[in-house]
Amino acid sequence: MDIIRVGVITTSDRASAGIYEDISGKAIMDTLNEYLKNEIEYIYRCIPDEQPLIEEKLLELARDKKCDLIVTTGGTGPSPRDVTVDATLKVCHKILPGFGEMMRTVSLQYVPTAILSRQTAGICNNSLIINLPGKPKSIRECLDAVFPAVPYCIDLIGGNYMVANEDVIKVFRPKQ
Amino acid sequence: MDIIRVGVITTSDRASAGIYEDISGKAIMDTLNEYLKNEIEYIYRCIPDEQPLIEEKLLELARDKKCDLIVTTGGTGPSPRDVTVDATLKVCHKILPGFGEMMRTVSLQYVPTAILSRQTAGICNNSLIINLPGKPKSIRECLDAVFPAVPYCIDLIGGNYMVANEDVIKVFRPKQ
Amino acid sequence: MDIIRVGVITTSDRASAGIYEDISGKAIMDTLNEYLKNEIEYIYRCIPDEQPLIEEKLLELARDKKCDLIVTTGGTGPSPRDVTVDATLKVCHKILPGFGEMMRTVSLQYVPTAILSRQTAGICNNSLIINLPGKPKSIRECLDAVFPAVPYCIDLIGGNYMVANEDVIKVFRPKQ
Repeated sequence: MDIIRVGVITTSDRASAGIYEDISGKAIMDTLNEYLKNEIEYIYRCIPDEQPLIEEKLLELARDKKCDLIVTTGGTGPSPRDVTVDATLKVCHKILPGFGEMMRTVSLQYVPTAILSRQTAGICNNSLIINLPGKPKSIRECLDAVFPAVPYCIDLIGGNYMVANEDVIKVFRPKQ
Repeated sequence: MDIIRVGVITTSDRASAGIYEDISGKAIMDTLNEYLKNEIEYIYRCIPDEQPLIEEKLLELARDKKCDLIVTTGGTGPSPRDVTVDATLKVCHKILPGFGEMMRTVSLQYVPTAILSRQTAGICNNSLIINLPGKPKSIRECLDAVFPAVPYCIDLIGGNYMVANEDVIKVFRPKQ
Repeated sequence: MDIIRVGVITTSDRASAGIYEDISGKAIMDTLNEYLKNEIEYIYRCIPDEQPLIEEKLLELARDKKCDLIVTTGGTGPSPRDVTVDATLKVCHKILPGFGEMMRTVSLQYVPTAILSRQTAGICNNSLIINLPGKPKSIRECLDAVFPAVPYCIDLIGGNYMVANEDVIKVFRPKQ
């Protein structure tokens, strides 16, 4: 079974300064460990909400570390320091608007402020980048909604083959 | 209670030339007056469908007049003279695609041509700009759908604190 | 009754090399023939997945051939050779995000991987360009969903007047 390489980037001024613990980054890794049977090698970064720095780390994880999947948490809203989405839009050569649409639709079942989230997904080099919100509860809701399409997306961009725990998450690969 | 500063821009070649009355701009102000307990100071512009002029007025209301909220009406379709959305995309440093998705979803309940609307929302300086269609009926439908998230958005970008008439509209602010 | 001019562009490395037959382009023409009472003049291109070439053909059909409608099939996904959407985004001066949202929503009823489709629509010169996926089954699902808004869109951009077979598809034109 392929080893999957996953980048996890938490963007948070406070978590990166050690003011509080980064629970969100851990929530992403816990969720992916549940989803996948593969061994996962995580490359984790916890950085402040600075757009050039976020772009640099996204490019490092996509180009140098050759991650199959990069998941960000935080920085998806309209606040001046919310710039993770902007960094993602900048480094990706292809944007996949369906991810953001789907995640907002799901979050709208819980809070009407879901329309404020700018979260998106895209392809950078051969990595799929997905933006998640900062709150652990929303992270799981969003991943549950989009993950069924993730393994096939990673197949299409030439990444490693993900094998899902079908009792946790149903993934889908269309017959060619 | 804070005074709220709201820009209202009607873009219409005919209304700005005095060929007919601008009912849409008035409909926006009537609706916001119903929604909010705050005193609202309106800055109103009725201008032709010229993109550079619309950009100029958006920037004036965002930068010089420091509006909390700027609402446009008209110019959201595919016609050559529909350029309000283009002006909005140009002046905003952040786009909030969830507003457009939500407004189209709501309008689709009434007309299948709702998919032709390009209306969006975004942040320009410290103002939230929202594009509404030109028709008074659609204006109310769209505002009812997105307004629950507006006061919190304006909190996040540093604007004045909106207090809603909860018997007219339920607004939502997540607990931090 | 006006004659409608429709461009159909199949982007496929294999179909354009003659490795297999282009069923998708044919499916589009069959569907439009069912939808419309008008005589339709088709201008058909089957080309490899090369972005500059796709842009060139889109511009040819929009500017020189003055098509009312241009429908593409293929190249909507995240794979490196999927570049039809990128070509569309490049040549259009207006993007109509509601088309992509609607088509993804419809495709999601069948497959969770619908969120991987980047398909969109936009205006290039006086032509409406719509991206469809490559699979014949999805082509019909997508066209059934968006076509009700197409004739009115083409009215708005100054094209020929489409007359629908109302027993096959209900189209909608708002009363002015």
